[in-house]
Amino acid sequence: MSSKKKVAIIGSGNWGSAIAKIIGANVAKFPHFDKEVKMYVYEEMIDGQKLSEIINTRHENVKYLPKHILPNAIVAVPDVLETAKDADILVFVVPHAFVPRICNTLKGKIKSTAVGISLIKGFGETPNGGIELISDVIKNILSIDCAVLMGANLAGEVADEKFCETTVGCRHKDNGILFKELFQTDNFRVTVVPDTYTVEICGALKNIVAMAAGFSDGLGYGDNTKSAVIRIGLKEMIRFIKTFYPDGTKETTFFESCGVADLITTCYGGRNRRVSEAFVKTGKTLDELEKELLNGQKLQGFQTACEVMTMLKTNGHVDRFPLIEAVYLIGRKDIPPQQMMDYLRREPEDL
Amino acid sequence: MSSKKKVAIIGSGNWGSAIAKIIGANVAKFPHFDKEVKMYVYEEMIDGQKLSEIINTRHENVKYLPKHILPNAIVAVPDVLETAKDADILVFVVPHAFVPRICNTLKGKIKSTAVGISLIKGFGETPNGGIELISDVIKNILSIDCAVLMGANLAGEVADEKFCETTVGCRHKDNGILFKELFQTDNFRVTVVPDTYTVEICGALKNIVAMAAGFSDGLGYGDNTKSAVIRIGLKEMIRFIKTFYPDGTKETTFFESCGVADLITTCYGGRNRRVSEAFVKTGKTLDELEKELLNGQKLQGFQTACEVMTMLKTNGHVDRFPLIEAVYLIGRKDIPPQQMMDYLRREPEDL
Repeated sequence: MSSKKKVAIIGSGNWGSAIAKIIGANVAKFPHFDKEVKMYVYEEMIDGQKLSEIINTRHENVKYLPKHILPNAIVAVPDVLETAKDADILVFVVPHAFVPRICNTLKGKIKSTAVGISLIKGFGETPNGGIELISDVIKNILSIDCAVLMGANLAGEVADEKFCETTVGCRHKDNGILFKELFQTDNFRVTVVPDTYTVEICGALKNIVAMAAGFSDGLGYGDNTKSAVIRIGLKEMIRFIKTFYPDGTKETTFFESCGVADLITTCYGGRNRRVSEAFVKTGKTLDELEKELLNGQKLQGFQTACEVMTMLKTNGHVDRFPLIEAVYLIGRKDIPPQQMMDYLRREPEDL
Repeated sequence: MSSKKKVAIIGSGNWGSAIAKIIGANVAKFPHFDKEVKMYVYEEMIDGQKLSEIINTRHENVKYLPKHILPNAIVAVPDVLETAKDADILVFVVPHAFVPRICNTLKGKIKSTAVGISLIKGFGETPNGGIELISDVIKNILSIDCAVLMGANLAGEVADEKFCETTVGCRHKDNGILFKELFQTDNFRVTVVPDTYTVEICGALKNIVAMAAGFSDGLGYGDNTKSAVIRIGLKEMIRFIKTFYPDGTKETTFFESCGVADLITTCYGGRNRRVSEAFVKTGKTLDELEKELLNGQKLQGFQTACEVMTMLKTNGHVDRFPLIEAVYLIGRKDIPPQQMMDYLRREPEDL
């Protein structure tokens, strides 16, 4: 049995393909990685040819990351079990709704010593309307440890090798070193922190804050107001994590890429901001705007706001999260956007 | 002798006049403030009339904050000693270069029980090229305690009563309560923290970071890179304060308006960012751009970078501040802006 670590990438969309570029190059640099990296591709036909075959012959994901050559190490595999069964490191980068089905397919059929890392933003849902972390879904179904990687990482810019940073949340120091070797390049700087929950939850909650920032833009408020909204949002993100996932969370992690940097990017660029600005300016409903602007895809920030509100209501914490409550109520058209500031004035000072 | 607290405002520029609007309204709300607030006006002639007379008859600072009515409580006084001598609270809001001269004029002639609060951003200079905090200049010359007020507070937006936040750094709890009463309104939200140095230094260092953000914009880098630059800048701000002013500094203060919020506003709006973008795009020197774009005013971020670099060199800490070093070297044209990323790759992980 080889002692080299085999890496498998579960997913091959825009972000999956961008990260495959990095992983494919990095496994060649270190002797302890196996030189072949299988990448699971959900098979589709492109101009009469299978996408997996195109990737394996042309080394380009023509559908999700055109004009970027994938390293020879990357081998597209249309079967998820075939992709994952021998792997020591499983990189999950699929839309979050697909995670339970994929994990159930792999359950009991992967290496018991494998470790996972999730690059997936957003929460899983629980039957009672609460939230479940994607890394916990993976961990619980597959009985493996699961780290996370989050940061200000627009896939296109990462693929273009523009300088950026990311944060790996990983409980085990040795795995952290391994993940840093696997992901870091000159233009993709990796910091490893131990509080995985903090890293992962930032990646979901930032979209709620971006909606508030978008409402502020739509209302024509200035720079002072927008940065106040972002700051209050950051405070509520910290407060949420301290309240519901206090175990090991560190305030310094919010200074990492997964915290302030990703929040800033999302509140200035990003579709949650854009749709929310249009919401104020057009008076349309979020449902209408999702159809018009997102091809019917759900607006992540609002979905997350609804899930988080259920959790806050159940636990009697609504009063401590006025920004999240305002985003929820405005998104439902229960209150007009102009009322957001009345909620923000009630922001508690403590974390 | 009246037990009511007399407030004096030392300064009447754009920011001074905006804050006078707030103070003038707030002294009317609390019984323990004297109802008259003297405001020092550096006398100038406007269309043949004294500015102080215009303010006292029309209740408008036609030169520095036109179209805003100042409350009747505000009385313009062209003599700084006359303004300050009976005051219990001295609000300093003049350009930082004027502080030593004004304080020396007031020395020994104000109430010994008075307290100061500085709204002045930037550092004072020391003969050896190091930095001195403005609040320390005031404290040392006048032998009074001096708090600070800093935040994402563009004067025009504050005067327009757009929602925003600010941070008061104040060592004494009772004074903190007093300052909150004096400054807070429905649209100007005050948080009081005890670590005044943190609050004050953020207000100066942010301009260095804004220059790095401007270079990133000028180089055409994307959202990921810009937010990485801002984040690395924030880390160096924290590291600088922990290194040189460790006494009582709290990481949570960086989550206040004086920290992340002011930094974001400055890195997206703000003239330091704008001039630095032009620096990259035009290839001109900072001296040339100061003349063209700032009417010959000095670019605060670069002046601060030079002062801070002197301090870092003297103390052997240059290696721990690659972003500040890069801004300094690029501003001097010692290295091309493109080399900034080589410096950022060396950013230490620890704070």
